[in-house]
Amino acid sequence: MTADLTRHPRRPAETRPRHEGAGVGGIRAVLVGVGAMNAIVARLLTEKGVEIVGAVGRSPEKVGRDAGTVLGLTHPLGVEVVADADALYDSVRPDIAMVATSSFMVDQYDVLATCARHGVNAITIGEELLFPWHTYPERTGELAALAREHGVTLAGSGFQDFFLVNQVAGLLGAVNRFDRLVGRESFNVDDYGAEVARDQRIGTTPEDFAAWQASSTRPPSFALPILAAVASSAGLTITGTTVELRPDIATGPIESRSLETVVEPGLLIGFTTVDTVTTGEGPILQMELSGHIYRPGETDRCEWTVQGDPNVRVVNPDVDTLRMTCTQMVNRVPDVINADPGFVTPADLPPLHYRPRPLNEYILARA
Amino acid sequence: MTADLTRHPRRPAETRPRHEGAGVGGIRAVLVGVGAMNAIVARLLTEKGVEIVGAVGRSPEKVGRDAGTVLGLTHPLGVEVVADADALYDSVRPDIAMVATSSFMVDQYDVLATCARHGVNAITIGEELLFPWHTYPERTGELAALAREHGVTLAGSGFQDFFLVNQVAGLLGAVNRFDRLVGRESFNVDDYGAEVARDQRIGTTPEDFAAWQASSTRPPSFALPILAAVASSAGLTITGTTVELRPDIATGPIESRSLETVVEPGLLIGFTTVDTVTTGEGPILQMELSGHIYRPGETDRCEWTVQGDPNVRVVNPDVDTLRMTCTQMVNRVPDVINADPGFVTPADLPPLHYRPRPLNEYILARA
Repeated sequence: MTADLTRHPRRPAETRPRHEGAGVGGIRAVLVGVGAMNAIVARLLTEKGVEIVGAVGRSPEKVGRDAGTVLGLTHPLGVEVVADADALYDSVRPDIAMVATSSFMVDQYDVLATCARHGVNAITIGEELLFPWHTYPERTGELAALAREHGVTLAGSGFQDFFLVNQVAGLLGAVNRFDRLVGRESFNVDDYGAEVARDQRIGTTPEDFAAWQASSTRPPSFALPILAAVASSAGLTITGTTVELRPDIATGPIESRSLETVVEPGLLIGFTTVDTVTTGEGPILQMELSGHIYRPGETDRCEWTVQGDPNVRVVNPDVDTLRMTCTQMVNRVPDVINADPGFVTPADLPPLHYRPRPLNEYILARA
Repeated sequence: MTADLTRHPRRPAETRPRHEGAGVGGIRAVLVGVGAMNAIVARLLTEKGVEIVGAVGRSPEKVGRDAGTVLGLTHPLGVEVVADADALYDSVRPDIAMVATSSFMVDQYDVLATCARHGVNAITIGEELLFPWHTYPERTGELAALAREHGVTLAGSGFQDFFLVNQVAGLLGAVNRFDRLVGRESFNVDDYGAEVARDQRIGTTPEDFAAWQASSTRPPSFALPILAAVASSAGLTITGTTVELRPDIATGPIESRSLETVVEPGLLIGFTTVDTVTTGEGPILQMELSGHIYRPGETDRCEWTVQGDPNVRVVNPDVDTLRMTCTQMVNRVPDVINADPGFVTPADLPPLHYRPRPLNEYILARA
């Protein structure tokens, strides 16, 4: 036997892909959501030999136009944006849906259930869907059952996949024991459009923020799915969770590009959450997540500190959160197609691998 | 279905462990080498419920004494250090050998071959064994064949496993494309005993160093196996390698603890290598590795920079290289026992996982 340095990443024998044959024919994808994220995803997919065979949008000014034109690509994609996902899936029978619409389970449930019912694999960057087993166990169980019934895989991914889940799980895998894991991450709210900026309370008063905090029914951050994914990967049982919020206040006038307004001093430029998870085995997992409008010179950064035997840290300075949400989603496409039917998370999937070849070359033959 | 946050990490169905049954009975390990590293490993194994059933040493002042006493543990281990590994393996029939002797293939080949012939799995922290397929393809192939013949797994691990291989491979898995990967790592030569200090040319003159460099027949650094592992994991084909050396010179008198001497100004406190790997697919992989006696305040640090789409970095500041060599070796024990027979590397094994439970609970039932 000689070294085969060109071999594909090792794959579990149990995988039963739905795509027809290993490396035979291209992967056919549908874009669900035709906004800023899927504009990047569409370019990356095309570069990696994936055919875009459809696009689903909602707004009347997008439906009926060429998806490439709507997304601002250099060339038309030759597919119209449609509002009716059911009809689209029945007619084009894609291998996978790239879901970049909302962050929340309440909005994503039907989108993913529709994919499953039509036999379409799906990967979503909706933050609550990254690892929804802790926060939405019943709804996730329903989606998983539906996926298994129809022989497809539904998956959460996004920026979190490597930087906030698998990198951190690997770091914990390198220590003997830990007492506390503390993560810090920040993102520029202004990079993600008006909807996210409003969700992050940009331009509201501290009094508005307190009232919103008292009345809000959904978790105020996306840290809990991340910590739950890390705990799962580390074999730890969650026994309790808490979250604290603090508003981030403008000290001088600061422009919000996404809302096309200037935030005056004393108003919110975003807020910071600190989620804490306790486990039955002892270790405490904590994550501080700050989403605010950046001042000049601020950049995205991830930092994870392990207090244990031994102490250890990992830092990703100056990280391109926006673009790496999309690059990871695209590199995950073969893993999702190859995975067993069900709802899978980054804690279940194989490690992310570099993809120098067209993505269909990473698809396994049916067992 | 509900979330099972306590489940074991997912395991490929193809694994065929040699250990008798999942979680049934303890794992029985033998220490090969009774120096500083296996002193730490022995403590960690005991903490994780692994029974130490033997120890192999060479030096006459160690052979015949209790291994725990030799290793400086608080309690005797109840096993004598022996010189004859063959007889030991035949009598105690261990599940795995923990090999912490030499860094080099030339010394490790027989150690690992002996394990294989006696049906004993083995994991080594010998740096050349981390991923020897590129540097020693024939010898590695022989070891792999021998391992398969006897149904055991031989594996390389160590500090490199997460920090220099899998963390880096995951980072590359998160980008769309890269042109160049540059790693920088330093270690304190004085932490690893007199043999490593002499290998790193401590206290020699620049002229000695030049002569040694001209005459040396083995690679001057352990970076090439690391870069080859990363290239393999990224699906890249190595087309060429180069290495540059520069001596690190004392600017003032500096104490070497391991050699119990003071290095005078103008003499070597170690040296730095820069290994460069070119690939058929285009990306260049480079690693600067510096082993020298640290000045006060210097700490171990890993840093990897990806130049590509997008750029991204990972930094582990102030990392405990010595201890994490041992913690990773120990956490890998179940993966090695579970793996298919052959020679496996960190690029082949599943991601490292935190091990909150006794290690035998992570062993799979035989298929």
